[in-house]
Amino acid sequence: MKLHLSTWLEVEAYLKESRGIIIPIGSTEQHGPTGLIGTDAICAEAIAFGVGDAARALVAPTINVGMALHHGAFPGTMSLRPSTLILLIQDYVTGLAKAGFTQFFFINGHGGNIATMKAAFAETYAHLADLNIAGADEVKCHIANWFMCGSVYKLAKELYGDEEGSHATPSEVALTQYVYPEAIKQADLSLEVGKGHNIYGATDFRRRYPDGRMGSNPALATLEHGKQFYELAVKELTNSYLEFVR
Amino acid sequence: MKLHLSTWLEVEAYLKESRGIIIPIGSTEQHGPTGLIGTDAICAEAIAFGVGDAARALVAPTINVGMALHHGAFPGTMSLRPSTLILLIQDYVTGLAKAGFTQFFFINGHGGNIATMKAAFAETYAHLADLNIAGADEVKCHIANWFMCGSVYKLAKELYGDEEGSHATPSEVALTQYVYPEAIKQADLSLEVGKGHNIYGATDFRRRYPDGRMGSNPALATLEHGKQFYELAVKELTNSYLEFVR
Amino acid sequence: MKLHLSTWLEVEAYLKESRGIIIPIGSTEQHGPTGLIGTDAICAEAIAFGVGDAARALVAPTINVGMALHHGAFPGTMSLRPSTLILLIQDYVTGLAKAGFTQFFFINGHGGNIATMKAAFAETYAHLADLNIAGADEVKCHIANWFMCGSVYKLAKELYGDEEGSHATPSEVALTQYVYPEAIKQADLSLEVGKGHNIYGATDFRRRYPDGRMGSNPALATLEHGKQFYELAVKELTNSYLEFVR
Amino acid sequence: MKLHLSTWLEVEAYLKESRGIIIPIGSTEQHGPTGLIGTDAICAEAIAFGVGDAARALVAPTINVGMALHHGAFPGTMSLRPSTLILLIQDYVTGLAKAGFTQFFFINGHGGNIATMKAAFAETYAHLADLNIAGADEVKCHIANWFMCGSVYKLAKELYGDEEGSHATPSEVALTQYVYPEAIKQADLSLEVGKGHNIYGATDFRRRYPDGRMGSNPALATLEHGKQFYELAVKELTNSYLEFVR
Amino acid sequence: MKLHLSTWLEVEAYLKESRGIIIPIGSTEQHGPTGLIGTDAICAEAIAFGVGDAARALVAPTINVGMALHHGAFPGTMSLRPSTLILLIQDYVTGLAKAGFTQFFFINGHGGNIATMKAAFAETYAHLADLNIAGADEVKCHIANWFMCGSVYKLAKELYGDEEGSHATPSEVALTQYVYPEAIKQADLSLEVGKGHNIYGATDFRRRYPDGRMGSNPALATLEHGKQFYELAVKELTNSYLEFVR
Amino acid sequence: MKLHLSTWLEVEAYLKESRGIIIPIGSTEQHGPTGLIGTDAICAEAIAFGVGDAARALVAPTINVGMALHHGAFPGTMSLRPSTLILLIQDYVTGLAKAGFTQFFFINGHGGNIATMKAAFAETYAHLADLNIAGADEVKCHIANWFMCGSVYKLAKELYGDEEGSHATPSEVALTQYVYPEAIKQADLSLEVGKGHNIYGATDFRRRYPDGRMGSNPALATLEHGKQFYELAVKELTNSYLEFVR
Ligand code: NI
Ligand code: NI
Ligand code: NI
Ligand code: NI
Ligand code: NI
Ligand code: NI
Repeated sequence: MKLHLSTWLEVEAYLKESRGIIIPIGSTEQHGPTGLIGTDAICAEAIAFGVGDAARALVAPTINVGMALHHGAFPGTMSLRPSTLILLIQDYVTGLAKAGFTQFFFINGHGGNIATMKAAFAETYAHLADLNIAGADEVKCHIANWFMCGSVYKLAKELYGDEEGSHATPSEVALTQYVYPEAIKQADLSLEVGKGHNIYGATDFRRRYPDGRMGSNPALATLEHGKQFYELAVKELTNSYLEFVR
Repeated sequence: MKLHLSTWLEVEAYLKESRGIIIPIGSTEQHGPTGLIGTDAICAEAIAFGVGDAARALVAPTINVGMALHHGAFPGTMSLRPSTLILLIQDYVTGLAKAGFTQFFFINGHGGNIATMKAAFAETYAHLADLNIAGADEVKCHIANWFMCGSVYKLAKELYGDEEGSHATPSEVALTQYVYPEAIKQADLSLEVGKGHNIYGATDFRRRYPDGRMGSNPALATLEHGKQFYELAVKELTNSYLEFVR
Repeated sequence: MKLHLSTWLEVEAYLKESRGIIIPIGSTEQHGPTGLIGTDAICAEAIAFGVGDAARALVAPTINVGMALHHGAFPGTMSLRPSTLILLIQDYVTGLAKAGFTQFFFINGHGGNIATMKAAFAETYAHLADLNIAGADEVKCHIANWFMCGSVYKLAKELYGDEEGSHATPSEVALTQYVYPEAIKQADLSLEVGKGHNIYGATDFRRRYPDGRMGSNPALATLEHGKQFYELAVKELTNSYLEFVR
Repeated sequence: MKLHLSTWLEVEAYLKESRGIIIPIGSTEQHGPTGLIGTDAICAEAIAFGVGDAARALVAPTINVGMALHHGAFPGTMSLRPSTLILLIQDYVTGLAKAGFTQFFFINGHGGNIATMKAAFAETYAHLADLNIAGADEVKCHIANWFMCGSVYKLAKELYGDEEGSHATPSEVALTQYVYPEAIKQADLSLEVGKGHNIYGATDFRRRYPDGRMGSNPALATLEHGKQFYELAVKELTNSYLEFVR
Repeated sequence: MKLHLSTWLEVEAYLKESRGIIIPIGSTEQHGPTGLIGTDAICAEAIAFGVGDAARALVAPTINVGMALHHGAFPGTMSLRPSTLILLIQDYVTGLAKAGFTQFFFINGHGGNIATMKAAFAETYAHLADLNIAGADEVKCHIANWFMCGSVYKLAKELYGDEEGSHATPSEVALTQYVYPEAIKQADLSLEVGKGHNIYGATDFRRRYPDGRMGSNPALATLEHGKQFYELAVKELTNSYLEFVR
Repeated sequence: MKLHLSTWLEVEAYLKESRGIIIPIGSTEQHGPTGLIGTDAICAEAIAFGVGDAARALVAPTINVGMALHHGAFPGTMSLRPSTLILLIQDYVTGLAKAGFTQFFFINGHGGNIATMKAAFAETYAHLADLNIAGADEVKCHIANWFMCGSVYKLAKELYGDEEGSHATPSEVALTQYVYPEAIKQADLSLEVGKGHNIYGATDFRRRYPDGRMGSNPALATLEHGKQFYELAVKELTNSYLEFVR
């Protein structure tokens, strides 16, 4: 059940059955020469819709732009500052909590969002307590990183070994190929890939990762792999969601 | 050209031809008993993609959640506070301006966003000037409200007269039917529709507009109307965009 | 009844009769070679005092500095950023609402304030609801732009036609001449007046409107016109106020 | 020279002679049973105009609403939160500094503003340095409290002794009587006056100072005293201003 | 009783006896060629522990970094902006107030903190009232500046006369010598000491006070003086604290 | 070398040799019936001083209060909201970066700080880039969690197995016993310890972890263990620091 395709009457009815909602969150950032800028949002949204169907759960609109300041030296990257993302998440959760939602299951496609999301959750719990909203003390927010699902991780290792890398990975590229086969890209990947550097500011990042990839070989990705990743993630996160709202 | 389906190399190439970008912005709010909660985002995004194709312009990801605090007493509504939306827009524009974009064409689906967007633009121009970004003084932001296109307005009047109303209108409902025919809803619309009240807080709004409609009769909407509205809006806003970036 | 000339005991007594208050809001910005920098505040305040007398309504102190960032490249302009003005309005309304006021009638002299004021109102309604103040859901804020009164607009068209323009207009200049006859200015107006450009940042504004006027010919203004504008605006807004608080 | 009665051309000319500007700041707060709510703003503004005339200095519009949260339990009080007032002052000074002003002489009518103003100045100096504005390191802000002028203080002691008190004082009431003789008030002052308590929150304040006076006997005030206070303050602060901008 | 050396059970027990807490606040800023950068925090903390012992009062962890922006042109200085320090103090007091503390006794070692602290207290009282915390209207915050104790001031005058100065004073240097005899410094103090200038921005400050001292001769300090200052301050502030919480 | 015990001349000299600085960060929060409220700050500070000595590195004052909102239902807990802690860290790093520091090595004693610190670092890198500070693109911030050192973790497992738990652990309690032998506490630990629950808001936390411990048995701690943990952490983090600044 997709929130944007529902009416408020349907949401009202849903709330009699469930207090849970899925919020996909991605990023809009460079993903190397062949990866889509929307990779993280595309993956999070596709999987969230799959989980929503399987678990009969409501899915909110995707947070398309996350925390990607370190990718900012590549054109096309968009980012919220952490302080803005904290306010956005607080606004999302507070509004929905006032309507009666208490279980917020964020399906996340971008490692760079995690820290800020956790900070936002802490800020939000305290804010809800301050507002004296009924049920404030039952609100729970959870981050489900699809790319850290055990089954996904295992398959990526089997298929790509060390060439999975940590950004612009073949696994996420494969998943976007499955979702958007019309947008499969070709580009020169012969530049030596950066690897193993810590992440600091945007200028430093581009110096160390000149084409945007982090230790990955996205040329290994195939649409068929993408389908496998999709199915594994949906299955595993459906179980996680059902566990979470139980 | 959709940003989320592009690579950073493609954006880099695009910037050699154009400094313009389209940003769809909608809302996630109640739209009466039969209107989709995502109506404003759906319409803005669909039209933005149409304009992007027609004008060969880059389209950024949609801002799905806008300023809809006054709809907050209906479950399923999500909103940013104006102060949060201002920061979000500032972050979007600032990041893109650093990459070289100067012409920001927001295709908007929600009247309630307009004031905050204008405030955000003013805040952002000053912020860019403070940052000393090259080209800061050439940055221009424009709001294109699809529902205020002359051609759209005229057709709506012809088809619906006064029953167009001002929220959960048959024209926007028609457009969503065209985009998502699988999500056409039926519900009881016999409750007398609220009309002509000013908008203040959320509780007051629901008192005055008990089923969420504002003077509208969305039962008049048809998918075929939706196609017409879509085509009129795309045509008119394509011209506006080309004029804007000229 | 002017708040600054009243005692708290008088306000306490007033609140037993009325929950309404008038807040004049202007701007401190360039108004062309002959217009006073305080034009918008002067007009708003004078009319507010007139309406206050006619309607026996309380008038709060004038917000002298509004949102005029786009005039910032002319010396003497002062402005709040939109985010600051939102906080200021929220502080004003919240404090007065705690004391029992619920009807806030802003008499506005500056078009550039409108968007930010609307954003501020939305932010404030939500804030008041969060604070659980008694009567929060009855708080209503209204913008009354004196220059958009039907009677004012009509007279301006009659007297000045297209030379009314949209900033540093003869109508507002006339009104300031009526209020401050000792401050009528003469200056060279032979520079070709800018006209019809959209408003973006401050540097761009000054490029397009080199002497600060926007399509106007303030040389047409007379003190006698000013008196007429004053009387029309007071009459029309008195009715609006009484309607608003009814 | 009053900013609101000047044109931008006049300000441009002024800046060739002087970098100084006077900013009156008051408060809108209860001043006991007979004191005007606008007392602090009235006094600051009147004296600022006097100093402006005597020193041929530019006077900006008055900040009418200051930091008066502790008076908030009396109806009619308006206040900015300190954090809002800091932003307001920063916006004022930053905009004027960009135009070339460097010497900001705040004539203050309210003791409760002082701490926040000092905090705002520190915040602003750092902000200006960050913005890399020409002359940022020469910007100086000064608080001139008229009620702490040596000559004023001396006269108040002579006239009223201990009955001067520290809020709703006969000296400030006298000054408002001189400026607004039409608004001299009578009320019962027989309630025992609170005295010597520290200032904490608004509820506590009203408990300790039940009619709003702090150790003062405003019944001693006369219009003639007010004239004396006015003249002493103008004279002393004119000297201070000239010293400050030398 | 030191908070950091207590358990929550001990704090729970303490709250049955007392609602008071001592919060030391200092600064991390240059103190001239021979003064320790931590001088203000060291003094505040040492005295706070002394008062805590004498008054059997709980002492919270020291706020080591305060408002020292004006010292920012000397390496090693750290500072919060006033707006940050306000939020920090608000967070401290709000959290402790929720637990039942109502009497906050700040022992302060740095004059530059005072204004921001007062602003923070006002902001916090209002915030607590908004949160509807039990006992919010009884919360009291107090600043006790050890260096302004009558007994301390008198001894400093006796020992140092005018050479006490106002920053990097022999009295505070002496106190740090008493607390940290192993960190007594020697350096060239022959540069003529700056004196009597007002404080504006950091660049200006260093121009006027080139070695960081403000009219002081810290070479007069001795460890034995430090012991005297310590004992006088502890004694006087213990009485103040007991008075405050009575 | 401790910043608070240094002069600005010494810092100036240090900066000619090194751009690195160590910043200890802890928390002030309940640590079960026998753990000190300052445990996390005590451990971070003690180890930071050890590393500072071993690596001849400068150590800044400890951030004593971190992000501990989830412990807020136990008296004595103090916390910054994440948004405040972000500003604090940004202020710390920005000020020091202006003086020339580029390598910020945070020694952290509290898992709950990590997410917010990472968010703060991202915010700060972008802020420094906006400020155009020399060397902004070389600024690097690193979190070194002493409790996650390989050697520490291994010893804790050997000594305590599963009874190490995740909060109020015997290893951190042991370390505080080593640092403050005079503050070793005894209390009833027979209440069944909470274990394995996710962390949400403060009320929920106390429901699930009624005495504050999370799966730990702090009764196993000894002062001798504490010495071992201290030495292992200092050794391992000294190496990390030297690697970081190389
Ligand atoms: Ni990715
Ligand atoms: Ni709509
Ligand atoms: Ni105007
Ligand atoms: Ni006063
Ligand atoms: Ni000091
Ligand atoms: Ni711990």
